[in-house]
Amino acid sequence: LTQPPPWGINTNIRLTLPVVCFVWQIAMIILFGVFIRYDEESDTHWVETKAHDNITSDIENDFYFRYPSFQDVHVMIFVGFGFLMTFLKRYSFGAVGFNFLIASFGLQWALLMQGWFHSLDPQTGKIFIGVESLINADFCVAGCLIAYGAVLGKVSPVQLLVMTLFGVTLFAVEEYIILNLLHARDAGGSMVIHTFGGYYGLAISRVLYRPNLHQSKRMQGSVYHSDTFAMIGTLFLWMFWPSFNSAITDHGDGQHRAVINTYLCLASTVLTTVAISSLSQKTGKLDMVHIQNSTLAGGVALGTAAEFMISPYGALIVGFFCGIISTMGYIFISPFLEKTLKIQDTCGIHNLHAMPGVIGGIVGAITAAAASESVYGKQGLINTFDFTGDFKDRTVLTQGGYQAAGMCVSIVFGVVGGAIVGSILKLPIWGDPADENCFDDEVYWEVREPESIPPILEYNNHMIHKQQDL
Amino acid sequence: LTQPPPWGINTNIRLTLPVVCFVWQIAMIILFGVFIRYDEESDTHWVETKAHDNITSDIENDFYFRYPSFQDVHVMIFVGFGFLMTFLKRYSFGAVGFNFLIASFGLQWALLMQGWFHSLDPQTGKIFIGVESLINADFCVAGCLIAYGAVLGKVSPVQLLVMTLFGVTLFAVEEYIILNLLHARDAGGSMVIHTFGGYYGLAISRVLYRPNLHQSKRMQGSVYHSDTFAMIGTLFLWMFWPSFNSAITDHGDGQHRAVINTYLCLASTVLTTVAISSLSQKTGKLDMVHIQNSTLAGGVALGTAAEFMISPYGALIVGFFCGIISTMGYIFISPFLEKTLKIQDTCGIHNLHAMPGVIGGIVGAITAAAASESVYGKQGLINTFDFTGDFKDRTVLTQGGYQAAGMCVSIVFGVVGGAIVGSILKLPIWGDPADENCFDDEVYWEVREPESIPPILEYNNHMIHKQQDL
Amino acid sequence: LTQPPPWGINTNIRLTLPVVCFVWQIAMIILFGVFIRYDEESDTHWVETKAHDNITSDIENDFYFRYPSFQDVHVMIFVGFGFLMTFLKRYSFGAVGFNFLIASFGLQWALLMQGWFHSLDPQTGKIFIGVESLINADFCVAGCLIAYGAVLGKVSPVQLLVMTLFGVTLFAVEEYIILNLLHARDAGGSMVIHTFGGYYGLAISRVLYRPNLHQSKRMQGSVYHSDTFAMIGTLFLWMFWPSFNSAITDHGDGQHRAVINTYLCLASTVLTTVAISSLSQKTGKLDMVHIQNSTLAGGVALGTAAEFMISPYGALIVGFFCGIISTMGYIFISPFLEKTLKIQDTCGIHNLHAMPGVIGGIVGAITAAAASESVYGKQGLINTFDFTGDFKDRTVLTQGGYQAAGMCVSIVFGVVGGAIVGSILKLPIWGDPADENCFDDEVYWEVREPESIPPILEYNNHMIHKQQDL
Repeated sequence: LTQPPPWGINTNIRLTLPVVCFVWQIAMIILFGVFIRYDEESDTHWVETKAHDNITSDIENDFYFRYPSFQDVHVMIFVGFGFLMTFLKRYSFGAVGFNFLIASFGLQWALLMQGWFHSLDPQTGKIFIGVESLINADFCVAGCLIAYGAVLGKVSPVQLLVMTLFGVTLFAVEEYIILNLLHARDAGGSMVIHTFGGYYGLAISRVLYRPNLHQSKRMQGSVYHSDTFAMIGTLFLWMFWPSFNSAITDHGDGQHRAVINTYLCLASTVLTTVAISSLSQKTGKLDMVHIQNSTLAGGVALGTAAEFMISPYGALIVGFFCGIISTMGYIFISPFLEKTLKIQDTCGIHNLHAMPGVIGGIVGAITAAAASESVYGKQGLINTFDFTGDFKDRTVLTQGGYQAAGMCVSIVFGVVGGAIVGSILKLPIWGDPADENCFDDEVYWEVREPESIPPILEYNNHMIHKQQDL
Repeated sequence: LTQPPPWGINTNIRLTLPVVCFVWQIAMIILFGVFIRYDEESDTHWVETKAHDNITSDIENDFYFRYPSFQDVHVMIFVGFGFLMTFLKRYSFGAVGFNFLIASFGLQWALLMQGWFHSLDPQTGKIFIGVESLINADFCVAGCLIAYGAVLGKVSPVQLLVMTLFGVTLFAVEEYIILNLLHARDAGGSMVIHTFGGYYGLAISRVLYRPNLHQSKRMQGSVYHSDTFAMIGTLFLWMFWPSFNSAITDHGDGQHRAVINTYLCLASTVLTTVAISSLSQKTGKLDMVHIQNSTLAGGVALGTAAEFMISPYGALIVGFFCGIISTMGYIFISPFLEKTLKIQDTCGIHNLHAMPGVIGGIVGAITAAAASESVYGKQGLINTFDFTGDFKDRTVLTQGGYQAAGMCVSIVFGVVGGAIVGSILKLPIWGDPADENCFDDEVYWEVREPESIPPILEYNNHMIHKQQDL
Repeated sequence: LTQPPPWGINTNIRLTLPVVCFVWQIAMIILFGVFIRYDEESDTHWVETKAHDNITSDIENDFYFRYPSFQDVHVMIFVGFGFLMTFLKRYSFGAVGFNFLIASFGLQWALLMQGWFHSLDPQTGKIFIGVESLINADFCVAGCLIAYGAVLGKVSPVQLLVMTLFGVTLFAVEEYIILNLLHARDAGGSMVIHTFGGYYGLAISRVLYRPNLHQSKRMQGSVYHSDTFAMIGTLFLWMFWPSFNSAITDHGDGQHRAVINTYLCLASTVLTTVAISSLSQKTGKLDMVHIQNSTLAGGVALGTAAEFMISPYGALIVGFFCGIISTMGYIFISPFLEKTLKIQDTCGIHNLHAMPGVIGGIVGAITAAAASESVYGKQGLINTFDFTGDFKDRTVLTQGGYQAAGMCVSIVFGVVGGAIVGSILKLPIWGDPADENCFDDEVYWEVREPESIPPILEYNNHMIHKQQDL
């Protein structure tokens, strides 16, 4: 079909990538045809529902409670994660483009998987979707995009699609166990999204370990403008994280409080990140890697507790420690992971997602266990922890225990799932790049202009040699 | 007044551009003074309206239904369209700057034109505006920004202003015919915005055909960072398209459904765009042109049907085919248009707007004709197609026919209007650039730094020659 | 601790920056612990409040009125201000990074300062915060970010933190005087935010005057991509300014009207900015400095009057003159300020904030004095100017006088406060850069890649010299 590839191994994806995309998309159409329907708030029968339920105004449609948050989350998924990963000098297309591809791919599968597990209507066998389903699908995809951060530049888009397919599947199952069976609370997904996604990506990266990755050393690291592009991602993630953590919390005070907590926590994280970053350099210079990533750790760590009465100063404390721990992770733990544990983590997701996610799980467990009627009010406590139905007799202490159990589930799913999926991705059929071609957009993208510096040097050499001949 | 221009023809706009801007803005102030007033929901008398209409809460002000969508649309107009066009290596200022200018210019005229046609109060002779008027003005401007895509880099800002002046005028008329006289539905503007804007731009570009455009070949195409900037535009368009298609649909389920449909359709488009893009290259590499543009075609094509009960899998199907058709358009149709029909379409708006717009019109006609009470419910059908007043006896089949008629109107207005406006723009008074200076910001912008590569080469040459003299 | 710095003076901030960050953040945690609590709409007791106040739906929580605007304001603070300042060729990290730092630092202090002055509960001694508090904190920070624009590139991050600490403090006091004591209206902060912030920054810059700043001339000015980055900031500020001016106005028509006015005013500003920019150059070329900055002046100038019945054409008129005045400021006044008054204003905040802010104050005073019951309605007038309680007998004319008085207060606080704070910042302990190292990210940031041009030239020289030796 094609010429032999210019790389050491075959990175031709002209067959596999289109086939996976087409087959997958056709499967989605069929499954959506069988299973997915509009829910009652997005169906034209809403006018009847309204009359039936005595709803007086269209504004009480869940759409108006959640759509602004949904759009913020949507921006985080596509611009936030996409641009955050553009920091590499020649992998911006892959960062933002493959992020775009796998998110679009994953969210469809997420609607189905989450639907089957959470909201399959037993009578009709249908899944009814609304704006909250879209948010949950975006959340689910976030787990896979986090994992992408660990293997950025080292895998083919086909591998990414496979990784996302299994990632979404695993996500839906662990989410079902944590939220439904254990009845843990995790509105912003410290456990369900970040811990799972983090360990999933790290485990995959471990299995795909490349001992000779130094061969593409010239392509690692950033250039001035790529670091500036990455700040677009950082800031949109940072600014919209309050929407992320509040998108699916309770109407009213639930969303309101989650926003306040996340806003404060993130502000605090910025200050300690800057402090540690400055401390880590001889003359106190700041490192863009820390500013781009560790400033976000507070948002991750408040994912579980954002809707709780953690109180404003509590949120500041969480942010305070997360900025320190995450930045230190970049300075001390990442090199250790690479050298000793052979985990090559391109974006440092261990420091931004895995570790803060675990902190978030612990914070959630402790604050849940410490909740009291005097702080929450009787009804407030019931609402916040959803102590209704089967769980109406659960105590806060028990709840704390289940929260902790939930965190363990997310770690186990991440590590074990990642190890298995990593093994699948190790098969030599996916078109991944050779060690010396990692982090290079030219492998999978038509790049019209070559890297800016070499050609000039070549031209110079050419001129100089020409001259020498004179 | 000034020195002779360094270009082949006179690109001096020091007289024309300020005059047009000033005259226009003063005219706007006068016309706004005569015609435009706040509507009852944005007037201080709202407190009385509320009492009179038994409205219990301020939240029922239309502002809260539409403002989040409005802001998303606003971002699409200025950042979305603006940055999407920054892909050229040295036309980023023109892309984002002239987009800014003509949008600001056009939206004022749009408020007047749309007001005169749609909402002139017969008693007072005034136009009462609110947030929905602002959305409609942004929509109207979108049509002209689409047209700008076809002539990007080949016209002067004065030409763009003229083009926008007539574009908005034509838009308001065709919109009146399609939405009011034919009573077609077109919430996201597949016909009214995209088909019209697309053919308007293509017709203008045809009339302004430049046989020697190859003389500025060195300036065509992208560089690495300009492609990354363009992805900012792509992503903000893509993410906020659900807001675009739902911004002016019915409160409640109407907005809710339009969002779900558009979200799904666009996800599907990404996968087939990637598939075809990969298929089109020898080793399966992806092309940034396709990823930047064709991924958006699904949003265009769902503009009419987004508020219908097209069902989730229906939305996926529309996206599926749009990704394929639009990408193939870039591969096969654009070269054909340029060679055979002499249409030079800088951004490929034929593939992103014109063609998907027509598809959207057809999808809308078919889904309208196929609507039934069993799916929509009796009242739902009336609400969705607005079968009230003069149109209360219209059947869905008739509606389908009028939808199709609407599409023809938009094409005719685009082609004929564009041909006429193109002829006006051909007059040699507008300061457009010579063939060899197209796609170059230096013609209309103070560019402090020259292109990055030549000076270095020159420096080298200088050094080398100096040396040779030694 | 460290090596002697490579610069003329000591720019080592390894001790000061972390110490300030840590001490400050710990102080914040303690003060938040003592003073800050959730307000009744973000507390779990909201369920009881609802029952008590007969609130029927969660949607009436203030969160749903203000959150979309809050997020837009948040984007303006971090992406808007941050990216607007990236225009310098090698100060993007400092622009966006230090903006990030001082905003995160300032908003915490703002919540406390504003709380103590505006909303300290006398019974409990607590400050109860909700989404409106977050908006106000962002507003307060905006004043300091404006001031940053005047000293961009010439100060150390420690100086910025000190400047922000005092800036927020002064802001809270002048805001209290203007809004509470004088009972002036200033929803979008023409006076409170822009006039104060502008003069505060200019006064500081005056005190820190550097006679030898020309030594870093090579680092001043922009390059092509840095100007494109800056347009991201411009556009997000421009698009979301309607949210800025409406974020804390009255529910319902108040927010609605402020959006319409600001939207129109800004559109008008763009046209006159383009006109004057084009007039100022020999061949009518546009200047990116004007497009990036003066297009925003209309939003500043409508900060006070946005919620008034200034009427649509009134908003256009304000924008018309602001575009002219602000652009002329860049052309004529900035050079004058630098030469004659020795005010070095990196971003031209005089033209974008100080001057339009004063215009806004005047417009506000005049429109307030001209308000009438015939236009506003009896209740509308009371609502708009909050003529209740102690102020129930105030006339519009008196109100106009107090508005004018408010503007004077903001100028005095800016100038005097800035002069004092500038003197503090002149102490030789803050690690500010030498004259020849201003506007250079390498002073405070690890920059992995050196400037792109010099090394190549060096390489060339090297090759050429090598050759000469042959």
